[in-house]
Amino acid sequence: MKKVTFYHAGCPVCVSAEQEFLNLVDTTSVDVNIVHLGEQKDKISTAERAGVQSVPALVLDNGHVLHINHGATLEEVRS
Amino acid sequence: MKKVTFYHAGCPVCVSAEQEFLNLVDTTSVDVNIVHLGEQKDKISTAERAGVQSVPALVLDNGHVLHINHGATLEEVRS
Repeated sequence: MKKVTFYHAGCPVCVSAEQEFLNLVDTTSVDVNIVHLGEQKDKISTAERAGVQSVPALVLDNGHVLHINHGATLEEVRS
Repeated sequence: MKKVTFYHAGCPVCVSAEQEFLNLVDTTSVDVNIVHLGEQKDKISTAERAGVQSVPALVLDNGHVLHINHGATLEEVRS
């Protein structure tokens, strides 16, 4: 089972990207952990350490980060 | 069957994102068309009309575009 984490901040761009991405993923072989950084601000530093620079972003289990669209920066989510 | 088009330009960022994305997708229900804009320059204007601003990008069958990472702009691919 591959594990990926999808970080978003509840903005319309994020939610749309999240749903569209999840529609494509093979959920029988991929375990998707969804983190709403607007509601879970304690996870922002975890996301930063993982290399997340903006949301929405997908952190893969090999450590790579796929930033999707050009959404809100983490600074904008934090404030 | 959902149809999506993945545009890339053969750069390391694109190829890495492509392979990692394809590893997550449910290919039993998603038909992924992969277009290498570096080799198929005639497709650049098609990509632009679809809303692609940078590569790698994924165009969904509902017309939405997910830009992945912040890679090369289309101008850089064209030259």
